[in-house]
Amino acid sequence: MALQGRHRDVVQRAVMSIAGTDPSGGAGIQADLKTFTALGCYGTAVVTALTAQNTTGVQAVHPAPPQFVEQQLRSVLADIDVRAIKTGMLFDADNTRAVARTLAAFYADAGAALPPLVCDPVCVSTSGHTLLHPDAIDVMVAELFPLVTLITPNKCEAELLLSRRGRPVKIDTLEDMVASAEQLLALGPKAALLKGGHITATRADVDRVVSQHPHIRVVSEGLLSENMEILQIVEEDAAAKILVVDVLRQADSTVFFISPRIESTSTHGTGCTLSAALACALSRGEDLIEATRQATTFTHLGIENALPIGHGFGPLNHLHGLVMRVVPLPTPSSPHPLTRTLIQSTQDTWKAYVEHDFVRQLARGTLPRECFLHFITQDYLYLKYYARAYGLLAAKSSSLDAIHAATQTIINIVNEVAMHKAYCAQWGISAADLEATPEEAATTAYGAYILDIGLQGDGAKLVVALAACLLGYGEVGLWLKKEAARPNTWVKLDNNPYTKWIDDYSGSEYQAAVQVGIATLEALAVADPPSPARFEEWRMVWEKCTRLEKGFWDASLGVQ
Amino acid sequence: MALQGRHRDVVQRAVMSIAGTDPSGGAGIQADLKTFTALGCYGTAVVTALTAQNTTGVQAVHPAPPQFVEQQLRSVLADIDVRAIKTGMLFDADNTRAVARTLAAFYADAGAALPPLVCDPVCVSTSGHTLLHPDAIDVMVAELFPLVTLITPNKCEAELLLSRRGRPVKIDTLEDMVASAEQLLALGPKAALLKGGHITATRADVDRVVSQHPHIRVVSEGLLSENMEILQIVEEDAAAKILVVDVLRQADSTVFFISPRIESTSTHGTGCTLSAALACALSRGEDLIEATRQATTFTHLGIENALPIGHGFGPLNHLHGLVMRVVPLPTPSSPHPLTRTLIQSTQDTWKAYVEHDFVRQLARGTLPRECFLHFITQDYLYLKYYARAYGLLAAKSSSLDAIHAATQTIINIVNEVAMHKAYCAQWGISAADLEATPEEAATTAYGAYILDIGLQGDGAKLVVALAACLLGYGEVGLWLKKEAARPNTWVKLDNNPYTKWIDDYSGSEYQAAVQVGIATLEALAVADPPSPARFEEWRMVWEKCTRLEKGFWDASLGVQ
Repeated sequence: MALQGRHRDVVQRAVMSIAGTDPSGGAGIQADLKTFTALGCYGTAVVTALTAQNTTGVQAVHPAPPQFVEQQLRSVLADIDVRAIKTGMLFDADNTRAVARTLAAFYADAGAALPPLVCDPVCVSTSGHTLLHPDAIDVMVAELFPLVTLITPNKCEAELLLSRRGRPVKIDTLEDMVASAEQLLALGPKAALLKGGHITATRADVDRVVSQHPHIRVVSEGLLSENMEILQIVEEDAAAKILVVDVLRQADSTVFFISPRIESTSTHGTGCTLSAALACALSRGEDLIEATRQATTFTHLGIENALPIGHGFGPLNHLHGLVMRVVPLPTPSSPHPLTRTLIQSTQDTWKAYVEHDFVRQLARGTLPRECFLHFITQDYLYLKYYARAYGLLAAKSSSLDAIHAATQTIINIVNEVAMHKAYCAQWGISAADLEATPEEAATTAYGAYILDIGLQGDGAKLVVALAACLLGYGEVGLWLKKEAARPNTWVKLDNNPYTKWIDDYSGSEYQAAVQVGIATLEALAVADPPSPARFEEWRMVWEKCTRLEKGFWDASLGVQ
Repeated sequence: MALQGRHRDVVQRAVMSIAGTDPSGGAGIQADLKTFTALGCYGTAVVTALTAQNTTGVQAVHPAPPQFVEQQLRSVLADIDVRAIKTGMLFDADNTRAVARTLAAFYADAGAALPPLVCDPVCVSTSGHTLLHPDAIDVMVAELFPLVTLITPNKCEAELLLSRRGRPVKIDTLEDMVASAEQLLALGPKAALLKGGHITATRADVDRVVSQHPHIRVVSEGLLSENMEILQIVEEDAAAKILVVDVLRQADSTVFFISPRIESTSTHGTGCTLSAALACALSRGEDLIEATRQATTFTHLGIENALPIGHGFGPLNHLHGLVMRVVPLPTPSSPHPLTRTLIQSTQDTWKAYVEHDFVRQLARGTLPRECFLHFITQDYLYLKYYARAYGLLAAKSSSLDAIHAATQTIINIVNEVAMHKAYCAQWGISAADLEATPEEAATTAYGAYILDIGLQGDGAKLVVALAACLLGYGEVGLWLKKEAARPNTWVKLDNNPYTKWIDDYSGSEYQAAVQVGIATLEALAVADPPSPARFEEWRMVWEKCTRLEKGFWDASLGVQ
């Protein structure tokens, strides 16, 4: 239990949506939950009303009883530490009141401050369906707005909110937006983000208004800034673009968020997504300006990456910022997912390597002497490549620890070579004979391939290439040891000229090196999760090395 | 519009959940939508009943009217091509009937086959709350099961389903599970997955039952297979583990899915998650065995990676398989997100480089001759490093196209050097003088750093290192060209000894190379999306190269 979640460096903060549903998935709590998930938050969702809707419009609405809205809210708040809340469609006065009063009462009773609360004052659907009863608007302003960190109306919603007192307000220009944002703030929320998606603006409009209101700060997203002429020449000229300007009004500042207008019909759920993304950013403690920047960027990319779904105004693509993990995170029950995946994905080759006839004959003591001698002299030559490859790994390392580890391995290899020399002396082969041995193609192929991988790729790829040998010999050692321990085993350890070889590779010293190798391998995938393309490269390197190992033993058996 | 979604190689198939809600986010449609999102599907969700619940239990249930369930279903089905469906909590007989009849009628009217339908027969919550009225069970069996691809009961649900006719059924052993799975199949669905989470089993139990029923196939997940002794010695012995056995019964086969039992209290929503993950796999056309394997693995990892949320049985972690994209996908309004992010993340250094005083003086024609000569002779030496780095890039490339592209760049550099020599000749510096020029530290630093990156990292990292020079000179050329075109420009092109230099770098030949460089850079992030760690490495390489470029011009200005 203590280990659970230990590899998640990003905490999943709990956020809450209080809104209606959209069974077709593009808006409402469905869109909110997708947004929360895509932005790494833990999503909760209280339903104020069910709808039957799709991308072509809203067909029907079934509100939840206000008592049941309260009950849902209390179930969540009593159990989960919610770090930010967004409200969407509240539908009627009773449910609006239930939400405002339950939130106020819960946090007052708990003696705690309300977490950041974003209110998307959803009033009318794109298709013209009323999503907030007229009498609910007054309740929202009177009871909810005083609790709210940020309201996020679009043009229509802002006009509705500001026209309540019989004085009709129209918002058509950037100047109107600046004035309206101030009036929205006067309705009680701590801040107002007036969205400009339905209002046409150009760079000249922005420059004009900013010159009249020099305190306004401009944040541009998705537009090229200075010193980006090399991108400008292939991208459309920003000055000629129609812009979307969102106006963020706080007590002491006004900020314009300008971005290029995108022509798209995939806009169903844009408001839901924006306010949900705002809640995610606020849950992480971002200020309103940074939160707005992140949320508008997320929403913008959702529209531009939209896929064709439905027959009307399609949904955003909420998954544009996600990449699927290929190697699972290590868990208590599976602490070595990368090693496991590599072995299992090349199961047949791996088995042909570690249970090779060469190994079986060696363990039976029946391996012809010339085969073993061939192997051990070629292995001597191979180990020089192998040591050099660790030298290359040291050269490719960026930390002294990594340089040290690679170097220590070279020293281990040098010691392994000393073992070889001792064997060879036993078998009547001198150091000079070893040096004079002609190198076989199987040896050159494997050795040079590892060095090639070291030249081609980064340190991670080289570690994968080096692992097949290190881990394979460890596996052979343990397999033979396990087989030797069975009753009536076929493995012969007494009077077997090769017993010392088995002892060496199954021994604690070599096995400790194997475990370090496994840990190094696993750390790669945790620190820098490979994309599908990168993992496929690793898998191919692993498989090729496994195959070359098998080829190495084929060549040694072939000399008899 | 035509470009939308062009970079998403994975289609988002639409899947549908028909279930209750869980406002606390761990179960119900909330868990289903998280699962759909985490598995790359487009989630839709029809609500059968609202609940007030959290990790400690279910506090209340408010069913949707059956007509409204039908209306939601019709809104989605009429608009969206749903590729798989799962049902969860249906709550009462009326809603169960509404779901079964609407699905049957819709697809019959459309003359289409029902997509794969997974039925999780949710009957009782972990905390003992009734989630399916007793009379609804008969409706489920009679009306829904005939449409169903797969039912996924746990022990309690299976006992309830099989005990309907007054004959109480208990499922306590693996043998019971095999018999019950067959009886579940007889209730009408095409297949039954009887989940074994509440039944204790060991490897010996599995071996015993399989020896009695030799047709049973065993699929193990999260357990080590043969030739994995090197992992076995640090992981617990599989033979000693308590196992979970899920039994998949189809008309012609029985499969055991065995996995290690995990001790965890984070199990709220396990059944919802499993059936949702099954729907995702079935929507992609996987067969039932592969779908079950994928879904059990996803659910298992969700439990093991769970984070502490709530005070009772906490939710799974649905995000365990997701990595956040650092570089957004290219879109029509932002086709160069990697280049843009690199430039913007090092804005100050980049500006100090491309608007360097050296460049300004050069464009004014006021740059001292000795500064230009210093620059151009050092640049000659630098270009040798730069060409060699492309040689290294060719050596690191895996396709002939990439080898060719790197080689072509070397040829371009050789041509650029010819231009240098012509300049130098104009300024009275011979080829021999050039060769004899001592190399400055700024030159060695930059040249050797690029080669070091080529040694250290993979081809992608080297491409980033090479881009700062290629793109920066392109930016300088375009910037000066743009400034020169302004009225009353400070740039002097007539009678300026350096005009040819400006013309060369702003000219179409060099700019075409810049665009190829940008396209190469952007392709990297699309083909192999960098993890946060990898992107940070790229950013640091880019920034260092930008800084070294500035240093190069500092050194040339410094000689006056």
